[in-house]
Amino acid sequence: MTATLQPLLAPRSIAVIGASDNIHKIGGRPIHYMNTHGYAGTLYPVNPQRDTIQGLPAYATLDALPEVPQLAIIIVAGDAAVQAVHDCARLGVAAAIVIASGFGEAGAAGRRQQEEMVRSARASSLRLVGPNSQGLANFGSGAIASFSTMFIEVPPQDGPVAVVSQSGGVAAMVYGLLRAQGLGVRHMHATGNQADITVSELALAVAHDPDVKLILLYLESLSDPHVLAEAARVARARNVPVVAVKAGRSQDGQRAAASHTGAIANEDRAVDAFLARHGIWRVDDAHALARCAPLYLRDWQASGRRLVVVSNSGASCVMAADAAQTFGLSLAPLSDTTQAALAERLPGFAATANPVDVTAALLTNSALFGEVLPVVAQDSSADLFLLDIPVSGMGYDVPRFARDAAAFADSAGKPIAVAVWQPPVAEAFRQADVPTYANAAEALAAFAQLVSHQQRLGQIAAEGEPSVPAAPALQACASPGATLSEAASLARLVAAGMPVVEHYLCQDVDAAVAAWRRIGAPVAVKASSPQVPHKSEHGLVALHCNDPEAVASAFTAQTRTLQAMGASCEGIVVARMSRGQRECMIGAHWDPVFGAVLVIGDGGKYVEVLRDTAVLLAPCRQADVERALSGLRIAPLLRGVRNEPAVDSGALCRLAVQVGDLIHDAGGTIRAIDLNPVMAGPDGVVVVDALIEVRKTARD
Amino acid sequence: MTATLQPLLAPRSIAVIGASDNIHKIGGRPIHYMNTHGYAGTLYPVNPQRDTIQGLPAYATLDALPEVPQLAIIIVAGDAAVQAVHDCARLGVAAAIVIASGFGEAGAAGRRQQEEMVRSARASSLRLVGPNSQGLANFGSGAIASFSTMFIEVPPQDGPVAVVSQSGGVAAMVYGLLRAQGLGVRHMHATGNQADITVSELALAVAHDPDVKLILLYLESLSDPHVLAEAARVARARNVPVVAVKAGRSQDGQRAAASHTGAIANEDRAVDAFLARHGIWRVDDAHALARCAPLYLRDWQASGRRLVVVSNSGASCVMAADAAQTFGLSLAPLSDTTQAALAERLPGFAATANPVDVTAALLTNSALFGEVLPVVAQDSSADLFLLDIPVSGMGYDVPRFARDAAAFADSAGKPIAVAVWQPPVAEAFRQADVPTYANAAEALAAFAQLVSHQQRLGQIAAEGEPSVPAAPALQACASPGATLSEAASLARLVAAGMPVVEHYLCQDVDAAVAAWRRIGAPVAVKASSPQVPHKSEHGLVALHCNDPEAVASAFTAQTRTLQAMGASCEGIVVARMSRGQRECMIGAHWDPVFGAVLVIGDGGKYVEVLRDTAVLLAPCRQADVERALSGLRIAPLLRGVRNEPAVDSGALCRLAVQVGDLIHDAGGTIRAIDLNPVMAGPDGVVVVDALIEVRKTARD
Repeated sequence: MTATLQPLLAPRSIAVIGASDNIHKIGGRPIHYMNTHGYAGTLYPVNPQRDTIQGLPAYATLDALPEVPQLAIIIVAGDAAVQAVHDCARLGVAAAIVIASGFGEAGAAGRRQQEEMVRSARASSLRLVGPNSQGLANFGSGAIASFSTMFIEVPPQDGPVAVVSQSGGVAAMVYGLLRAQGLGVRHMHATGNQADITVSELALAVAHDPDVKLILLYLESLSDPHVLAEAARVARARNVPVVAVKAGRSQDGQRAAASHTGAIANEDRAVDAFLARHGIWRVDDAHALARCAPLYLRDWQASGRRLVVVSNSGASCVMAADAAQTFGLSLAPLSDTTQAALAERLPGFAATANPVDVTAALLTNSALFGEVLPVVAQDSSADLFLLDIPVSGMGYDVPRFARDAAAFADSAGKPIAVAVWQPPVAEAFRQADVPTYANAAEALAAFAQLVSHQQRLGQIAAEGEPSVPAAPALQACASPGATLSEAASLARLVAAGMPVVEHYLCQDVDAAVAAWRRIGAPVAVKASSPQVPHKSEHGLVALHCNDPEAVASAFTAQTRTLQAMGASCEGIVVARMSRGQRECMIGAHWDPVFGAVLVIGDGGKYVEVLRDTAVLLAPCRQADVERALSGLRIAPLLRGVRNEPAVDSGALCRLAVQVGDLIHDAGGTIRAIDLNPVMAGPDGVVVVDALIEVRKTARD
Repeated sequence: MTATLQPLLAPRSIAVIGASDNIHKIGGRPIHYMNTHGYAGTLYPVNPQRDTIQGLPAYATLDALPEVPQLAIIIVAGDAAVQAVHDCARLGVAAAIVIASGFGEAGAAGRRQQEEMVRSARASSLRLVGPNSQGLANFGSGAIASFSTMFIEVPPQDGPVAVVSQSGGVAAMVYGLLRAQGLGVRHMHATGNQADITVSELALAVAHDPDVKLILLYLESLSDPHVLAEAARVARARNVPVVAVKAGRSQDGQRAAASHTGAIANEDRAVDAFLARHGIWRVDDAHALARCAPLYLRDWQASGRRLVVVSNSGASCVMAADAAQTFGLSLAPLSDTTQAALAERLPGFAATANPVDVTAALLTNSALFGEVLPVVAQDSSADLFLLDIPVSGMGYDVPRFARDAAAFADSAGKPIAVAVWQPPVAEAFRQADVPTYANAAEALAAFAQLVSHQQRLGQIAAEGEPSVPAAPALQACASPGATLSEAASLARLVAAGMPVVEHYLCQDVDAAVAAWRRIGAPVAVKASSPQVPHKSEHGLVALHCNDPEAVASAFTAQTRTLQAMGASCEGIVVARMSRGQRECMIGAHWDPVFGAVLVIGDGGKYVEVLRDTAVLLAPCRQADVERALSGLRIAPLLRGVRNEPAVDSGALCRLAVQVGDLIHDAGGTIRAIDLNPVMAGPDGVVVVDALIEVRKTARD
């Protein structure tokens, strides 16, 4: 655990400001929980109206305490909370958790109060959780500084999972879902408005807890990706998977998040790229957050995506085979040896191919699962095992099925899950520590997540640590931008060593015609003005000019148009008409949170409509771009179809890496780069059109 | 109920051949169930080894019965089952259910036995269910000719749902899931190998049951779409939704289905098109089959897709807003009046915009849901209501929440669902007859299904009955096909009145050059031979020819190439080079089950790779094609983007309807039509390349 957060997660002493004797009240619950669950430090209830609270001596004020507590839980609301934070700071309390809501998430007055708390805290070295926080709970240390009712609903049990969430509701729900699966939870923390301490910081802290084996996060806003990246790094080094919901994917969701925790919207595809880069698996909701936990906690390393389905229902076999395709899994082709061994054990009319249908014969031969599973486990083509039991219960030897599945789970070293909807049957498997799902689709979704997540973590291990966003990304880019002209944009690319179409900036007709002659092929004639970034719409692009008259007349017409528009003219660009096998695009922009963001994909004039692009963070490696490209719809076209040669995608990826480096190294002084089209062919790539937007600096 | 299936669903007398005194055996369970659940007809156990069975007199043989039973349940296996069917047929039994497996699904010998049963049955007027069937259960008549153990696990209750399934496992699972939601089930039928009676026929029968309000189907193969279409028609006329799983979507799934029930693979996109056409909603698995039932059964008509979310967790609000987008729903923009009314009722820091976050204040004010729901119900912009409660239980007045939600459900007349994962809380809502889901994603998926399904049924009601596939589609198209030449293909289109590119079939160079002159523009020169359907790959297409030399040399080269290939030459086509705004494609083929299948979408040379197409059944209406087009990725391009005019999609749709009519009217004598590209522009469409494959007739 990082030293800084010890006062939050394992404090030696805790003051509860606004303590209550009623264990059902917010001010009463934390004390009750800590009394119940073995907190070994000292608890100081603060309440001017009582002498004792829940059997402990109570104090009228914070100043009246016999020592300065390490942690204060501030239950009181409004101005009293602001005052309490101030008092904590004044006395040198190390950390405070502000429970009350009605601050940063609730309008201007609340925001001002929240800022005041932060100022008090910063003036001292007080660290703040909240406001609008449900609190933190560490079942390792017994420091349960949380008022969640869920600990009454579902009794806690210390265990390997850490849940860190902006929302107390999500933390409680995920805790409950994990406990319902029989899993133990060590940490359950809710950060609320994150005026100071964020989910990222707590994630980093719990990543250092040696007993933690799985970290589940819920974020509504992400302002410190460099901290989260560090948490992910620490977790990876300890083989601890990190799974996250980043809510606010949609516009409506972002609006709701703003009024919930005052969250600032993040660019969602950049969030995707950031999480993927650092090996954090992103899921959509609290339910999905808990879903894969039983698989992660078994320490299984999936060897691939080839699934074996064993069921007592032929229809479940069919549907599971269909679902496997949906989730990007394939059915393992069982060897002849395996099938022969299955044939010895199964009734004559049962299927020995995968899926393996043991049929209703299971009713009369309860040993069937136990006989079949070890056989399929031997097959080297099998990576994942689904036991799908849509019908059982009375008449079936369920305890035996559970024992057989557990024996398999313990010995095979490969992931197994059971799909069973009947609650008592599911409970039997869960008790036997076999990952259990209500239906095959849930199980296969969890398998797909496990495999893809482990694959991504393997890539990071093989390719080396990903680069981490610089913290100063936050500050950059507040001022408005300015557009460079076509010529100036192309010149920046040339200077960076990028492949740019042969072109000449011409100041008169003669120069333009001479440029055409030098190129010796059809040319494009394009006006170059920083004031007119979108030239086509104003008739400032003439294509396929291939004689002096065409070049001259385009030059003259464009010069006149610019004059008529009152736009400055840097000259007219004469450029070789370039054809590629495919028009691609490479874009980049500076994000205030993530820094350099790179976009690559299908180009041409329909780029916004057909939107076949991938987003990465820069700087990135060739391998990152290759992976991104391979996920595009046009990926097969780049590889070559119908006798077409493959496009030189190596060159395309190299160019993308260069563009990413360019915007990254500019550190916010370039706001955006738009290269479209980038002509990609078998012999390389060439940038045809470029638009660079720079940030106006103080000098401008 | 159709008269023909009365002996199966409400027989006056039932013989059980292979009856057992042990109620836990397959031969014992149906008798036990019928004794327990009030079957009012006469039961005849047949078993040569006993005098009485479960208190009823037993008979040694079928012939020994005092009357010919209407229905026989055949429990005995193998040859004995074949003999029993034969005996039933001989005696004039109206219907028989063959329970045993090991027939059509299990190799050649089993298939022969199954065929023998069918022959016996057809020779009489005996109708067969199975073999490999779990049996039929009708809780209306008490005729429970099923050995499912699920009736012991989950006690039956007669109700408005009918489950008809090829698989007994799926039938049992769906039954169980429905019962777990507190819903009653009238019919639960499993057809197994469908040697005679199919899911379609039973669906038609239950559609006539006046107490049935919802029909859920599981199919592995579909051989009689005209019967299922009729079932859908009867159901629509009675406002009964039909939801279906058609398993075997994937290749692996089809293989598994073949070994499960001997299912023949269907073309999956044609299945989609068929079900959509007839207003049957397709889902993926048994779980999804049961999911929407509580919403359907409330008789709610969704007025649109605008969702209101009410929650006691801000994070759930955010995630539900995100999920709404995922499921194609939008958030209802609540009016100022509504928001003002909410502000009066909610704590100051709560959000009054949608999603409505009542916050943790719910803990202290249990009336909040009850106060908020009627207010949002008044808002005319609201179509659907989600009550998302991730945290409750002890300390919360759950019974009151359930009462408030139930009151809303009864009075608002608009769909409401509750998302709650805590089982006892969920149970409270379920008891109050409020549709309840384990999480928001499930609830919104169900909402989306309800709205889309009702929308589709509304379209059918507005546009008139869809045409039904002809039964003889089954027989056609067994013989191999032959390809028409380019010229002959184009000629067929011209004859059908379709817009085809200006072209001439030329027999010598002079004619070709004359054709070019007549066209007066660049031409394409294409060899026309029935033996060479794919011309480009052999260099038999020359584009952009625009002088006599180019036309002549292309003509000569192509003639030589054909000679060298030993292919016959019908002549050389000289066609105007046609450009459109977008290259589209229209294809059609004859499916042995569904008849005429139409494909429309993005065209050009990458059609297989980028695959942006929609599938419809023909004959179809203009409106059908328009809907299909509007779902394509290129739909915005057809509507016109970036100053481009809209394509004449009316003309494109008319052409597609014509193509559908052509192949439909040909009744199987045309196997396939491939028009690609169809040049689509603002002024109409024109077919540029065509390939028609015909069926060889007996004369060929």
